[in-house]
Amino acid sequence: MAYAAELALANRLAEAAGAAIRPKFRGAFEHERKHDASPVTEVDRAAEAAMRAILESERPDDGIIGEEYGRSNEAAGRQWVLDPIDGTISFMAGRPIFGTLIALLQDGWPVLGIIDQPIAGERWAGVIGEGTTLNQDPVRARSCPSLDQAVLATSSPHYFTSQQADPYMKLAAKVGGNERQGTIVYGGDCYNYGLLAGGHLDVVCEAGLEIYDYAALVPIVEGAGGTVSDWQGNPLDADSDGTILALGDPARLEDVLEAMG
Amino acid sequence: MAYAAELALANRLAEAAGAAIRPKFRGAFEHERKHDASPVTEVDRAAEAAMRAILESERPDDGIIGEEYGRSNEAAGRQWVLDPIDGTISFMAGRPIFGTLIALLQDGWPVLGIIDQPIAGERWAGVIGEGTTLNQDPVRARSCPSLDQAVLATSSPHYFTSQQADPYMKLAAKVGGNERQGTIVYGGDCYNYGLLAGGHLDVVCEAGLEIYDYAALVPIVEGAGGTVSDWQGNPLDADSDGTILALGDPARLEDVLEAMG
Repeated sequence: MAYAAELALANRLAEAAGAAIRPKFRGAFEHERKHDASPVTEVDRAAEAAMRAILESERPDDGIIGEEYGRSNEAAGRQWVLDPIDGTISFMAGRPIFGTLIALLQDGWPVLGIIDQPIAGERWAGVIGEGTTLNQDPVRARSCPSLDQAVLATSSPHYFTSQQADPYMKLAAKVGGNERQGTIVYGGDCYNYGLLAGGHLDVVCEAGLEIYDYAALVPIVEGAGGTVSDWQGNPLDADSDGTILALGDPARLEDVLEAMG
Repeated sequence: MAYAAELALANRLAEAAGAAIRPKFRGAFEHERKHDASPVTEVDRAAEAAMRAILESERPDDGIIGEEYGRSNEAAGRQWVLDPIDGTISFMAGRPIFGTLIALLQDGWPVLGIIDQPIAGERWAGVIGEGTTLNQDPVRARSCPSLDQAVLATSSPHYFTSQQADPYMKLAAKVGGNERQGTIVYGGDCYNYGLLAGGHLDVVCEAGLEIYDYAALVPIVEGAGGTVSDWQGNPLDADSDGTILALGDPARLEDVLEAMG
């Protein structure tokens, strides 16, 4: 299996982050707004620090791209991408559907990804060319015969710019017809991509994502038989524009792009 | 303790519903759209049937108002209000944050409520005049010194009519300022009210709710020190208009009403 040692290391990173997060869930912690006004807690920072300490000790030549502590070894071909808590607002509100995201980029391309939910005890893992697993059991995205039967997920309407809201609403109308409350589920952050990989929903459409938000999702969705792209249908790499479409059934990608056009 | 026998019975109803739901979570089940186009699954129906069977056997003179199977004994002063799965779309998508809602109305007023999350194993219970509990431990809503420090939750923007969207967006702007992505959490249905009762978020604002969606929430939020009303600040009873405001800190109610006005 490709990247077996890296997957074992990524699992250890997830365990270190979870050990920092679990005792603080629904507990007391400091929080503040970052320069982009998104919230960050001391728990986000502690979880990323725990992961970086392991990487700096065991992979000193690899690069790190972390949401909270930035970049190191930027010229390295191998970059570990860390989001200690994806869905910080969900974590702060006590919901067990945030996640720790860990990815490995090889020359800018995501080759390994983990979504770890440390409260529910769920870990999705994907490696390029391998099948995705949830807690080591294989999972598979489902087929979706037509868009009007799809369940669509997105974290928040506020993540879209005013220009992005229009194509999103076109997709929402196509999926849900007049009855969007029955076919669109809001909230969820990275957890939605795990559920898509498991065959429980069909489309995730988001925007405004950073590399640490999306890199881990790509191997997980693709290894479950789905597809991930930006809103133009291009594969995601380190230079993507932050828009993302994930589909459980790649046969529906053209329909989604057409609906948003 | 008031309503001790009824609370014990309500706990048994929650257990019966959970036993019907748990084996089907992330499994295969039939679903369809109801006349109002909201989704319903065979699991919703089985869970409500399990609860009704207990009530019909043990409380044959009490009324029942159920989301899936309607009303019986409508003239009774005591009405059990059942929503077997609040957040059916969330259940269908495999998220462990839907809930079974059980309430008891006395002459139209909610006097007892349960929110049960059978996957995470979380049960909030509230009885009029008593303190709210989560898995039998007391919980308490938190204070909120000003709206710009509040975390706001709502299940979906699509639940608002076009007339309701405007006051909601005014509240969203007041809470989050220019940075709504950091202070508003979407999705969650009844689970949000449990989290508010536990002191993890500050305001829930929704509309389009039916009696079976909101009756159970009232004793739970009020027993934790919070307040529940419609969008005019009136208490909720069986004839409410389906708008709901829940606040962990009742001192902020005037601010919320002013923001939405």
